[in-house]
Amino acid sequence: MTNQIFEKEHQVSYYECDATRRITIPMLINIMMHVSGEQSHALGVGDEQLNDKGLAWIVLQYEMNITQVPEFYKTIKVTTQAMSYNKLFCYRDFNVYDEAGNLCVTAHSTFALLDVTQRKMVRIQDEVVAPFEAEFSKKLIRTPKPEKVADELTVSNEYRVRYLDIDSNQHVNNSKYIDWAMDTLDYEFLTTHKLTYLNIKFEKEVYYGDRIQSQMSLHEAENGKIVSAHRIVTGSTTNSEASMVWEKSEDEVSR
Amino acid sequence: MTNQIFEKEHQVSYYECDATRRITIPMLINIMMHVSGEQSHALGVGDEQLNDKGLAWIVLQYEMNITQVPEFYKTIKVTTQAMSYNKLFCYRDFNVYDEAGNLCVTAHSTFALLDVTQRKMVRIQDEVVAPFEAEFSKKLIRTPKPEKVADELTVSNEYRVRYLDIDSNQHVNNSKYIDWAMDTLDYEFLTTHKLTYLNIKFEKEVYYGDRIQSQMSLHEAENGKIVSAHRIVTGSTTNSEASMVWEKSEDEVSR
Repeated sequence: MTNQIFEKEHQVSYYECDATRRITIPMLINIMMHVSGEQSHALGVGDEQLNDKGLAWIVLQYEMNITQVPEFYKTIKVTTQAMSYNKLFCYRDFNVYDEAGNLCVTAHSTFALLDVTQRKMVRIQDEVVAPFEAEFSKKLIRTPKPEKVADELTVSNEYRVRYLDIDSNQHVNNSKYIDWAMDTLDYEFLTTHKLTYLNIKFEKEVYYGDRIQSQMSLHEAENGKIVSAHRIVTGSTTNSEASMVWEKSEDEVSR
Repeated sequence: MTNQIFEKEHQVSYYECDATRRITIPMLINIMMHVSGEQSHALGVGDEQLNDKGLAWIVLQYEMNITQVPEFYKTIKVTTQAMSYNKLFCYRDFNVYDEAGNLCVTAHSTFALLDVTQRKMVRIQDEVVAPFEAEFSKKLIRTPKPEKVADELTVSNEYRVRYLDIDSNQHVNNSKYIDWAMDTLDYEFLTTHKLTYLNIKFEKEVYYGDRIQSQMSLHEAENGKIVSAHRIVTGSTTNSEASMVWEKSEDEVSR
């Protein structure tokens, strides 16, 4: 049995990029998720079929390694593949390639199936995953946890969840948590460093109108790289944790 | 002489939609602007050629009429055309069509040419607009002004300009002003009303870190439609004014 691979090309637009003229990570994640949605749709197990069963996929975690963030105006190829599943989780990988076929980004993700009415995770149903031809394996894949925020070093910003943070799934779009996390780093830092690693765990949803705190601490790792640890909280609830690894960037992008 | 028309198709993704499963107006404007950028690029007068001359296009105003907001997963066709220009302004129209060829959205826009170093509007140069085959006409086209906010009825929210509000043009993305304006209307209103008209004027740029006030007042027009008037201000400076006309919506969208 070979797992089905699905691929789609995407041209990077100016409005998908930040001031460094490279695609923003939240936008890249949106596009990756769109491609996996397209695969499900093509295989007859898209969101609409799941909705009919009262089910929806949710993402619990992403772990990304980034060698190069795609540039403005370039066409990227995104591939995705359901790797394996067990009773509760489905593991899906993504690759992003540049025009020359170089691998720029790899991502591992953990999905779960939600009973929409009960708002509870349910057992993965064979019929929902069979078309992807992924392997059933009892083995849980342990993705490393994001690094913890160092409380004594925390920077914190408040955000209110806005109407346009909610997408057509009628939930706050996953990528918004990354927006809030990154925004605790300042303009100077973000335009002079590049992200090489991102690990984000989604724990509890936030809702329209919530006031969330985006907390962050920064430290230098032994290899000289800079690590930012992030936490999104509402009151005493942790909604999401993330860590990011940064390198000083030297290059500039032009069209 | 016939004005060059340029067109491009776009499939609406889940992350481009709001909770009503229709594309957000800020995203639609991004896509329209992308299509006009593509036309300029195809005609050899793209942003990169303008940058080499120290110039950039800026948008001063959009006026949009919306009969139907494109739905999730549908493929839309966006056409654009430079209509005419005079010493200072260039007028550009956009049409958005659904899959059946129905006209959903029309937009008139006013562009000006900016000297990037001096941050000043300059005379439109013939060589920059000649490839569009638009007509030179001394006549200024007067787009109606947005309705004024009624000060005694104002709702106001504060926003801080974030890193990810800035796009690859290294300025706050135009569509963000519409985000801030719309967000003064609440979830209940936005999910039960549809936008039929938008008029937005950009007066003074906002910058990273600025704290902006998004002010809004609402009233019912004689025809029963609801009008929201908007103003984006920083201190005593008006950065943008807009007005929007809304109708009660009855329909629901599914994939």
